[in-house]
Amino acid sequence: MGDAPARLGVGMVGYSFMGAAHSQAWRTAPRFFDLPLQVRMQVVAGRSQAAVRAAADKLGWDDATTDWRSLLTRDDVDLVDVCTPGSTHAEIAIAALEAGKHVLCEKPLANTVAEAEEMAAAAARAAEHGVLAMVGFTYRRVPAIQLARRLVADGRIGEVRHVRAQYLQDWLTDPASPLSWRLDKNLAGSGALGDIGAHVVDLAQFVTGESLVGVSGIMETFVRERPVAESSSGLSAQAGSGTGPVTVDDAALFLGRLSGGGLASFEATRFATGRKNAIRLEINGSKGSVAFDFEDMNVLHFYDDTEESATAGFRRIVVTEPDHPYTGAWWPPGHGLGYEHGFTHQVVDLVEDLAAGRQPTPSFADGLAVQRVLDAVERSSEQGSGWVALV
Amino acid sequence: MGDAPARLGVGMVGYSFMGAAHSQAWRTAPRFFDLPLQVRMQVVAGRSQAAVRAAADKLGWDDATTDWRSLLTRDDVDLVDVCTPGSTHAEIAIAALEAGKHVLCEKPLANTVAEAEEMAAAAARAAEHGVLAMVGFTYRRVPAIQLARRLVADGRIGEVRHVRAQYLQDWLTDPASPLSWRLDKNLAGSGALGDIGAHVVDLAQFVTGESLVGVSGIMETFVRERPVAESSSGLSAQAGSGTGPVTVDDAALFLGRLSGGGLASFEATRFATGRKNAIRLEINGSKGSVAFDFEDMNVLHFYDDTEESATAGFRRIVVTEPDHPYTGAWWPPGHGLGYEHGFTHQVVDLVEDLAAGRQPTPSFADGLAVQRVLDAVERSSEQGSGWVALV
Amino acid sequence: MGDAPARLGVGMVGYSFMGAAHSQAWRTAPRFFDLPLQVRMQVVAGRSQAAVRAAADKLGWDDATTDWRSLLTRDDVDLVDVCTPGSTHAEIAIAALEAGKHVLCEKPLANTVAEAEEMAAAAARAAEHGVLAMVGFTYRRVPAIQLARRLVADGRIGEVRHVRAQYLQDWLTDPASPLSWRLDKNLAGSGALGDIGAHVVDLAQFVTGESLVGVSGIMETFVRERPVAESSSGLSAQAGSGTGPVTVDDAALFLGRLSGGGLASFEATRFATGRKNAIRLEINGSKGSVAFDFEDMNVLHFYDDTEESATAGFRRIVVTEPDHPYTGAWWPPGHGLGYEHGFTHQVVDLVEDLAAGRQPTPSFADGLAVQRVLDAVERSSEQGSGWVALV
Amino acid sequence: MGDAPARLGVGMVGYSFMGAAHSQAWRTAPRFFDLPLQVRMQVVAGRSQAAVRAAADKLGWDDATTDWRSLLTRDDVDLVDVCTPGSTHAEIAIAALEAGKHVLCEKPLANTVAEAEEMAAAAARAAEHGVLAMVGFTYRRVPAIQLARRLVADGRIGEVRHVRAQYLQDWLTDPASPLSWRLDKNLAGSGALGDIGAHVVDLAQFVTGESLVGVSGIMETFVRERPVAESSSGLSAQAGSGTGPVTVDDAALFLGRLSGGGLASFEATRFATGRKNAIRLEINGSKGSVAFDFEDMNVLHFYDDTEESATAGFRRIVVTEPDHPYTGAWWPPGHGLGYEHGFTHQVVDLVEDLAAGRQPTPSFADGLAVQRVLDAVERSSEQGSGWVALV
Repeated sequence: MGDAPARLGVGMVGYSFMGAAHSQAWRTAPRFFDLPLQVRMQVVAGRSQAAVRAAADKLGWDDATTDWRSLLTRDDVDLVDVCTPGSTHAEIAIAALEAGKHVLCEKPLANTVAEAEEMAAAAARAAEHGVLAMVGFTYRRVPAIQLARRLVADGRIGEVRHVRAQYLQDWLTDPASPLSWRLDKNLAGSGALGDIGAHVVDLAQFVTGESLVGVSGIMETFVRERPVAESSSGLSAQAGSGTGPVTVDDAALFLGRLSGGGLASFEATRFATGRKNAIRLEINGSKGSVAFDFEDMNVLHFYDDTEESATAGFRRIVVTEPDHPYTGAWWPPGHGLGYEHGFTHQVVDLVEDLAAGRQPTPSFADGLAVQRVLDAVERSSEQGSGWVALV
Repeated sequence: MGDAPARLGVGMVGYSFMGAAHSQAWRTAPRFFDLPLQVRMQVVAGRSQAAVRAAADKLGWDDATTDWRSLLTRDDVDLVDVCTPGSTHAEIAIAALEAGKHVLCEKPLANTVAEAEEMAAAAARAAEHGVLAMVGFTYRRVPAIQLARRLVADGRIGEVRHVRAQYLQDWLTDPASPLSWRLDKNLAGSGALGDIGAHVVDLAQFVTGESLVGVSGIMETFVRERPVAESSSGLSAQAGSGTGPVTVDDAALFLGRLSGGGLASFEATRFATGRKNAIRLEINGSKGSVAFDFEDMNVLHFYDDTEESATAGFRRIVVTEPDHPYTGAWWPPGHGLGYEHGFTHQVVDLVEDLAAGRQPTPSFADGLAVQRVLDAVERSSEQGSGWVALV
Repeated sequence: MGDAPARLGVGMVGYSFMGAAHSQAWRTAPRFFDLPLQVRMQVVAGRSQAAVRAAADKLGWDDATTDWRSLLTRDDVDLVDVCTPGSTHAEIAIAALEAGKHVLCEKPLANTVAEAEEMAAAAARAAEHGVLAMVGFTYRRVPAIQLARRLVADGRIGEVRHVRAQYLQDWLTDPASPLSWRLDKNLAGSGALGDIGAHVVDLAQFVTGESLVGVSGIMETFVRERPVAESSSGLSAQAGSGTGPVTVDDAALFLGRLSGGGLASFEATRFATGRKNAIRLEINGSKGSVAFDFEDMNVLHFYDDTEESATAGFRRIVVTEPDHPYTGAWWPPGHGLGYEHGFTHQVVDLVEDLAAGRQPTPSFADGLAVQRVLDAVERSSEQGSGWVALV
Repeated sequence: MGDAPARLGVGMVGYSFMGAAHSQAWRTAPRFFDLPLQVRMQVVAGRSQAAVRAAADKLGWDDATTDWRSLLTRDDVDLVDVCTPGSTHAEIAIAALEAGKHVLCEKPLANTVAEAEEMAAAAARAAEHGVLAMVGFTYRRVPAIQLARRLVADGRIGEVRHVRAQYLQDWLTDPASPLSWRLDKNLAGSGALGDIGAHVVDLAQFVTGESLVGVSGIMETFVRERPVAESSSGLSAQAGSGTGPVTVDDAALFLGRLSGGGLASFEATRFATGRKNAIRLEINGSKGSVAFDFEDMNVLHFYDDTEESATAGFRRIVVTEPDHPYTGAWWPPGHGLGYEHGFTHQVVDLVEDLAAGRQPTPSFADGLAVQRVLDAVERSSEQGSGWVALV
């Protein structure tokens, strides 16, 4: 083939919500971006033979298997893409890294700090041999978020004073909504905190370029018993009641301090009635501010305090210009992108890093840092909201 | 004369920002509302003879005095309106009540819980003799806030799960901004917390109809030394430096629990670059939500979760209809009101309560409750954000 | 007394909606602005003795009369403020000018071009003797509109290419809404076109600093018969039907060309369901744009095309800064104004012009220019939307 | 094979902007929707051998050719997808239909009414043999637009009184922007009117379910000479000047009447500085309103006038619920879609219609109807904006 780019064979584990999003990304990235490696969607692994076969056909994978370990020994698999629930991340990701496969692992990195530490250690060992790992905080790849990061890094807002970060959903407001694995601490690790709070912790640290050095929090489960759906085998209904306990948090709120001295507030909830997927981030600095809301994901608001006061105001930047991050590869200005494009951008960045032998970000170490924040929030909540220092 | 409404003679103490707002309210209320008492703007009191005389002319008071105590013995003064800094509230308000004068006192009720307690006790004693007291949390009287309260009280949002309350300003972001009495703990009591945080605590408790039962907080002073302006005599510049210490908080963030079990987060800051006077309140309940931003003060957003999902959405209610609170007395629909109208509505409600011999709200007891929350936040902040129970 | 400013005695004719707004303005302007003349609210004139007496008391006028002509001979009246329906403007305003009284006349200047021409001629004659006249397009005095004008005049948006102007209301959508004088061509002159379309024509010409040189339009009356309310004596119900004809337009749409070569579109309607008082103005120029919506009246949106594309966006300017038009006299930044403040600013500008012996704007000639545009729209509509040149 | 769905082989002509969008749609539709036919991306045709080969590889087509006529005789091509400039649509589409191939043709249907009539006639003849044709007004397939159509069709806004439709772009504001084929009347047919005005005409007619019965318009070319870019061979620079004439409109504004008696205003421009791709549509009816802006494409605003006035307001519906059009096939609520998804939905609807032997919409007859509106606007503009009746 001579000049043809080298191949990157991908094997994916899991094929539901995240599997569909990742498949769309692997399939689409080469169509809009010039990738230095040739992506091949080789195989998808799952538990049920019939289901994984159907998923392979639907999502566009060449092969299907019920044995995820088989991916580790396939020559045509160079990267393992982990899209399973958090309780299985450590086992799969560590095995893949040890087998010399690059790894893309969905967030949160793991359900516990201990597991996340093992994963980060495994990633560090693997990196010595050029085997690389990345955790999938895809909201970083929304163009408006990348633009926010660029403005902050360029000093356009000065020193960070305030971060206001919220991830608001409302799919649990109805007490009749049934139990699911996401409400079981054994499987999900935590509730709103780990599922969606993790995203805003990562976003806050990424856009500011700083880390949280301490937190204080409260967590709550508003509805503690829910009906067990008949299809939810494996979830334990209390005898005779037809209901089972919710063992994770419905909502988590916490305050924090940033390494640069700024103050931050966070909220993650599944009870914000009317807010479907509102990821809100506002950062106030000594010279300006940026603000973002995922409900208007193609827009970044930017306030420049060096403007004269008579014409200063938050600018509504439609982040679709050729000189904005990623957007030049897509459509003309004003033709916005959607949720799934973050996954495509993640593939683009990952493939470029792999081809260059560069550590992709966020690394497993970054994922561990987020996990430590979540853990600190849980500990603070358990001990009367007392301050828990990080570092 | 026979049927002419009884007179309500008003004496005001203080005449700067709040004095101007109150004067506009006393002057305007009778022009748009049918008041049961005939308001007379009798006298304004201040420290400087020339200044108070000029203020009387400008603001429309019949008389001026440098002796606020003289108001207490004037027969033509039925009510004392206290618009001075917080450190003087207790002395003036208690003396007025004891002299048998009704009192309207600007917020915060006092600079300390101890003073606020004395004031509430004085108000309780006075009430036994029909002498009534009110504290001036005027943002309650924004029509959109009253509508929010009505919707919550009518059960339209169900049980309250979340409160998100922020009061964001940015007038201190420049480190070269000079010291003022508002940055001196002895005069102001506290900084952002007491000045603006007090408002959102009151709003949250008012609109939910619940009270905070505990809090956890952090406070910060980002700029600890500021230049002493030459005109600011009385503020102590450190020898030779030309600067003096900022002794209050620039920002305060806290979490809380409501008496009904909901979670709340609060933020008050003077460092939110680009946010001029953003009072934001969002309340999520089990059946709906309300959201408000003072930057768009004639609007209330309301989400009704009982609507069918295909057409559910936050409704942008322009709160200027004849059946909205207060607005029927003003202009046709869509002709919005401004900041000062809250003060006019406060006068209207107060005068109606006085005429009826009813306790106006918020009472001094309500003001004390807010003060206790602020105090608890300060104590939590001092002790590593540990939980401080109220009640 | 020596240095006391000279007196400006005001006599107002009419006391309903506009009368209330004007009274509030005369009463309030001296309280917030330093006026070069001392305003005296001397007398209000109306048709019914009891009603005009009550209005005088309510609105704060010293005297009341049922004979508006008596104002013309009173020494204590220096200015006649005309707040009556349009059909009476010419008679009152011309008589007042000829009696040597300054005149402030509500818009539209008149119901016909012929009347408006007589009024403009009378104003020109009076001006030779220092007697001055102004027409009340108060929306010009919204601070955000003044800021827009300043930016355009300063060249910040370059050459004007497009104007998009709408005045949308919805109070007639219900076919059961009764007839009123505003729906009778004899009294009102025209419907949506003259009542609200006049405002956006004036705003477009004011902010661009250009004039319309031709128009093409369509007009429509959607509901041609309406019930006659019992209280509406004077409106002719058709025998036996209980309804009467609507003889004015419910909506008017027109296109135009500006003197600078730009294109403009206008819409005025009382059938824009859900839009209460949406006055929208967007102007696109070769170097930038401004956009305004009265539903968010304290905000101006400004796009500066000279910014680098990565950070260009419409700036949401909260027009409440000390260096914004008028706002420094009111409240701190972020404490917005309301509908009625435009009237107060109108008084301020008028009094300053009178004291300086300067022609106030908009002059009667400006009002005539607007009237000619409205007339051209009507003629175009009558002749199949064919182009009607102005000038 | 037995139950496997029948094949739909696609051949595409053209591969630039629209070709990339269509390719993404053909590739993606089967991954998220269950299509009744199995889509095969067989071949792409273009003028340059090297370029079309590269495009095939990039966009995912099996084969490439420089002879579009070869598609007509290939057995593996069942549908021809026409993505070329408008001047070539008639020739290709008619030939394909006559060869028994289904046709999807980009908008505008043609550059002239005469051509569009020939195409509609060809489509009518082909339909008798089960060969079907569709024109690609993809904005119809934005979920919020489909929801708007559903609400209007269900009578939720009553009788349509007003349509306000704008398509605003700004890519020509710089006079130094070079000539391109889009500015040459011979190639493009018209400028803003046909390119983007066509979209809003179609949207207005689609959402209201009515047709325009007459129009009056003005058109303008603000910059009449532009530099000829060296790469733009084929465009005629005037000798020695380095510039060439712009022969199409930069902006077109027109008014119209709908078949149901409502009034409409339209604007299409490439000079709306700061507006990148603002497609705005507001429809006011006797019982409610809908409003849409493509800059916030996942949102529909809906006003229901049957609500009680105290809680009525435009609802901001985030159109991502399972019971919204198309969105159930994608992501959870709140995870928005982008520009390209309209093309995918177009493929879904087209394939379902083809499988069912149903006429897809918009048909070529619908495309012709839009073309007649555009033609009427041009004629009105040429004759002093006089009314031009349609039908």
